[in-house]
Amino acid sequence: MNGASSMMHTLVNNDVTVCFCNPGTSEISFVGGLDATDKMRGVLCLFEGVATGAADGYGRMKDWPAATLLHLGPGLGNGVANLHNARRAQTPVVNIVGDHATWHLKHDAPLTSDIEAIAGAVSGWYHYSGSARDLPGDTARAVQASLQPPGQVATLVLPSDAAWDPGRPPAGPATLAVPGAAPGAGGAPPAGRLEPAPQRSVPPERVTEIAKILAKGEEVVLLVGGRGFRAEGLRHAAAVGARTGVRVLGDRVNSRMERGAGRYDLVRIPYPVPQAIALLKGTRHMVLAGATIPVGFFGYPDQPSLTAPPDCEYHVLAESDEDVIGALSMLAEEISATPDPDRAGRYDPPALPTGEISIEKVWAAVANLMPEDTIVSDEAVTSGRSSQGQTAGARPHDWLNITGGSIGQGLPAALGAAIACPDRQVFAMESDGSAMYTLQGLWSMAREECQVLTIMFNNGAYRILQGELERLAPDATGHTSKAMLDLTQPDIDWVSLSQGMGVEASRANSCEELVDQMRSALTGRGPRFIEVMV
Amino acid sequence: MNGASSMMHTLVNNDVTVCFCNPGTSEISFVGGLDATDKMRGVLCLFEGVATGAADGYGRMKDWPAATLLHLGPGLGNGVANLHNARRAQTPVVNIVGDHATWHLKHDAPLTSDIEAIAGAVSGWYHYSGSARDLPGDTARAVQASLQPPGQVATLVLPSDAAWDPGRPPAGPATLAVPGAAPGAGGAPPAGRLEPAPQRSVPPERVTEIAKILAKGEEVVLLVGGRGFRAEGLRHAAAVGARTGVRVLGDRVNSRMERGAGRYDLVRIPYPVPQAIALLKGTRHMVLAGATIPVGFFGYPDQPSLTAPPDCEYHVLAESDEDVIGALSMLAEEISATPDPDRAGRYDPPALPTGEISIEKVWAAVANLMPEDTIVSDEAVTSGRSSQGQTAGARPHDWLNITGGSIGQGLPAALGAAIACPDRQVFAMESDGSAMYTLQGLWSMAREECQVLTIMFNNGAYRILQGELERLAPDATGHTSKAMLDLTQPDIDWVSLSQGMGVEASRANSCEELVDQMRSALTGRGPRFIEVMV
Repeated sequence: MNGASSMMHTLVNNDVTVCFCNPGTSEISFVGGLDATDKMRGVLCLFEGVATGAADGYGRMKDWPAATLLHLGPGLGNGVANLHNARRAQTPVVNIVGDHATWHLKHDAPLTSDIEAIAGAVSGWYHYSGSARDLPGDTARAVQASLQPPGQVATLVLPSDAAWDPGRPPAGPATLAVPGAAPGAGGAPPAGRLEPAPQRSVPPERVTEIAKILAKGEEVVLLVGGRGFRAEGLRHAAAVGARTGVRVLGDRVNSRMERGAGRYDLVRIPYPVPQAIALLKGTRHMVLAGATIPVGFFGYPDQPSLTAPPDCEYHVLAESDEDVIGALSMLAEEISATPDPDRAGRYDPPALPTGEISIEKVWAAVANLMPEDTIVSDEAVTSGRSSQGQTAGARPHDWLNITGGSIGQGLPAALGAAIACPDRQVFAMESDGSAMYTLQGLWSMAREECQVLTIMFNNGAYRILQGELERLAPDATGHTSKAMLDLTQPDIDWVSLSQGMGVEASRANSCEELVDQMRSALTGRGPRFIEVMV
Repeated sequence: MNGASSMMHTLVNNDVTVCFCNPGTSEISFVGGLDATDKMRGVLCLFEGVATGAADGYGRMKDWPAATLLHLGPGLGNGVANLHNARRAQTPVVNIVGDHATWHLKHDAPLTSDIEAIAGAVSGWYHYSGSARDLPGDTARAVQASLQPPGQVATLVLPSDAAWDPGRPPAGPATLAVPGAAPGAGGAPPAGRLEPAPQRSVPPERVTEIAKILAKGEEVVLLVGGRGFRAEGLRHAAAVGARTGVRVLGDRVNSRMERGAGRYDLVRIPYPVPQAIALLKGTRHMVLAGATIPVGFFGYPDQPSLTAPPDCEYHVLAESDEDVIGALSMLAEEISATPDPDRAGRYDPPALPTGEISIEKVWAAVANLMPEDTIVSDEAVTSGRSSQGQTAGARPHDWLNITGGSIGQGLPAALGAAIACPDRQVFAMESDGSAMYTLQGLWSMAREECQVLTIMFNNGAYRILQGELERLAPDATGHTSKAMLDLTQPDIDWVSLSQGMGVEASRANSCEELVDQMRSALTGRGPRFIEVMV
């Protein structure tokens, strides 16, 4: 058994059973190793940003990592943008980067580059596995590192000789119990299942202190983030809000929000800085439950970086690597708050739209037609501004946001979510500017027969930037600046692009066509693509 | 005038007149600044790898930099792969990366990341321009740095406040004459033109030493690299070879080779290590003229890293940052070698092919039909193995290779070359696996009406990796490993993809169709795309 095969068994022994691959020559032994077990699903991606974004989407849905396979520094570079999103989403990812044979590195062959430098910008854990001998243990440690609460990108560099040299027996989770212990000698992995390090409980006295702040009668915001966006966290947070009258708001950036009928919805801090400032006006205390201090997505010349008032005091109920849901539960118990079922979302979707297409009507159709347990990968950007209100009364569903601001995440995240949850419908809500970065994701959806319905809001522009240009460069009225934000000339034909990638596609020219096409997609098998011009 | 406008004037004052842009909010003032002068051409790219690859192609043709505009760390990440190729090609590139406002950075807003770490892996020069006050001088220095022989990627980080704050007058080239001098106060740039630092001449005694080695009567290879691939360098090298009988070979990796009728062709060291070893067998001395010691693209378990024999002695005639052409000329003069016009390439293209399509016939058609001064961007990979022989007798042309091994360079490089040389025909010779990484480049070709004819060899596979799998993992005969190298299921319809990007496309099912379609492309205006199934 060579190093690669042993690595593959080790991954499987640790329940890492999907690898989003974009291999090259230095990864060929790893590719061969995929055949070493029938429990590892290799998903070919035709661009590395698809692989890393899919691993992010998978990890968000499973709370367990998938692996990636990337080709040296340049391949890692192509994966950086979506690894950045995964970092901000605190998603567990085992990010495997192939490299030259150890003894080949010193010759500075053309593909040699500083992998560690690039990886450092996106990884919470980094390790260069220097030999086949170390590979099983290093692999198990990478899985464990990825699960370090709240979750992180663990990058493991795999030199090609470590993959092809004779390997040690695979490591299993039990070997991790004794740090530094040698892997079992018998080839059979130890029994058991790798458990992520438990999330630390918050100390009760901290909860008591927070309860006192809530009782002060001053303007308080309870800001929910991270795992707090799961249904249970939102229920406790809503109970606290109902009991005390404090406002419960949500971090803009979050990895997965459980929404819809039966769940407790909340308002997320809006993207535009003036709106965020208006929402937070008067806040004297902000209690952070897995959230970070609200900061504008960008700085603006006439706006502060922080969107809460300057005299706002911040109080941490739970850090993101602590047990956020537990902390919210403790707080609710401390103040004797119980969830009020009447405040839970009711199933009350908008009516099916008719007539001319508009952004709002598309969201109404989505809200009306989405099956229970749908996963929404939201990269609609400016076309998504009415999405939250429209879908609040839909069937229960999960919502995946862009976390790190790197566009090109929506299609890959939808791919990964569909692989993670094959029995659930996935919606990829896309915009033309964003989808273009990683449109190769469509091909992998077709190959894997993923149940993804992509709806493309095609507005022919970097619309969000047009607003920023008017605001930040009002004197720029020339042709060149306008052209840099315009996606027409030529028009992009997304139906043609999707079909070229093997995904059945159509354009909906009216709400009736949209509803028909969506129904067909939702009752059929495999991916579908619908373009609407907005 | 704000910082961005002053920067724009400074770029133009230094003859940087093209910017390949993929902007975001933090770059909006720069986008507005594009309107500050009608001498700056903004070329919108829908993915950063297109922008950086286009800057590489442009710089290779002009020996002068274009600028890029990228969006923070993730945008830079997307550009890394083609910046890596530019680094290996020693191409001058002014790589501008927008960043948060200086005072916004400390809040770790979602898009914040370690730009310097990522940039370090691909940049020969890096600078963070901290204020509008410093921006003109820093910009001029970035241009100068990019031109440091032999050429390099100069990354300048542009915080958004440096762009929108009131600026200083633009800097011109003359300010660079006195290091650290303040830019001129009058707003008008000083007269003159920035000159790159001269390439150092090699010392005559080194040439004399090399001449002695050539005279020894032992097996010598003169290995040409870098600027030595220009027609003049090849002519001198050929003269040396004819006079002394030493073999003249070429570095595999090179940025631009001047070939075809009237030029002196040479054999480049082949990609497969066994073939490279066979070619170099018996070599006792290797004289390096702008080339590096030949190393396998990858290491293999049963092959050495270096492809020349272990007892080969290496002798440097010229480092890549020295005057390689001058050194070859001095060497020719030292040994009284004059070019033999009879050894120059004759115009003797293959006949136009007929009948069934094959890879060799496609190259014959290219060689036959290419107009004088065509630029070939070669990313045909395995489909390109017969290209050199077939095209040696074509009209004079320039050949651009992948230098750093990062695929996804061909379409962007063709875009950049077409922008650099609008009066010349460009051929992008593509393969399906490679082109997929940066297919967005087609859209920019359509918008800019570039004279690029893309010919797509569609073999439905990562063919090069199929060979590596057979060799490196002969036991891997399972379904998963095979699937990772297969680009069918679903088939990719490149005609549809190209049309979706706005580039007129067709499939050629016979040589007659191919020739017809190529003639139509070559006589028409704007980009065209022809797919052949091989």
